[in-house]
Amino acid sequence: MIFDCIFCRIVAGELPCTKVFEDEDTLAFMDIAPVVKGHALVIPKQHSESIHDTPEDVLRKLITVVRRIAGAQVGGLGADGVNVTQANGKVAGQVVPHIHFHAIPRFENDGHSWNWRQLEYDNPEEMSACADKIRAALG
Amino acid sequence: MIFDCIFCRIVAGELPCTKVFEDEDTLAFMDIAPVVKGHALVIPKQHSESIHDTPEDVLRKLITVVRRIAGAQVGGLGADGVNVTQANGKVAGQVVPHIHFHAIPRFENDGHSWNWRQLEYDNPEEMSACADKIRAALG
Repeated sequence: MIFDCIFCRIVAGELPCTKVFEDEDTLAFMDIAPVVKGHALVIPKQHSESIHDTPEDVLRKLITVVRRIAGAQVGGLGADGVNVTQANGKVAGQVVPHIHFHAIPRFENDGHSWNWRQLEYDNPEEMSACADKIRAALG
Repeated sequence: MIFDCIFCRIVAGELPCTKVFEDEDTLAFMDIAPVVKGHALVIPKQHSESIHDTPEDVLRKLITVVRRIAGAQVGGLGADGVNVTQANGKVAGQVVPHIHFHAIPRFENDGHSWNWRQLEYDNPEEMSACADKIRAALG
């Protein structure tokens, strides 16, 4: 537990949450400022900051719970779709530095539409160069 | 393989892609219309439409590869952060109905900012009612 981490404090019961699921490793609870009503957060109890420092086995358990929550948003809330999102780093929009997946139920006419942007590469070589750098870093 | 699925056709080699990673079960390649340059897609070779119908073991392998790609975007591209997103259903913004995770590298001053919305529940009971429905559907 990290003393000043708001999600660690929720896990420890020091801060309240509206729980939807809990097991030994994972907690899922309602986001109090939902993108769409019914929006839930899924976190590991063990603190890690982002996808980079989260152990593989923890991440695998987490995505399994995300899948279950997403299914329950469809089955229980009647959602027509679900956004699963996860931000790493302030620049990506991460506010709480304890890894969390958002499961956001989507409904026809829920009034939200992501500002998805579609850039173009200057030329095919620019895209290939990005791919080369990623491949090289994969080792 | 689904005959008219663009991602199945990429897996089969019938359509081109700029590959960054491939193993027996998984393929990662560059998004040709990136939110931010360096944006990659991670898909299972086996067709499924969304997180709901993707077998748990396939999903677990997938998230492991997403984690590796995200790390390589930091290590190889010098990204300051990474967005991991996955849309289920047209209403959620899913365009290709073959499950895919987006790994979007983020950089200071990359010119993008998500239109994250923060709604309020009318009252605490409204949020609890959502949680109850999700819990009930979890079984």
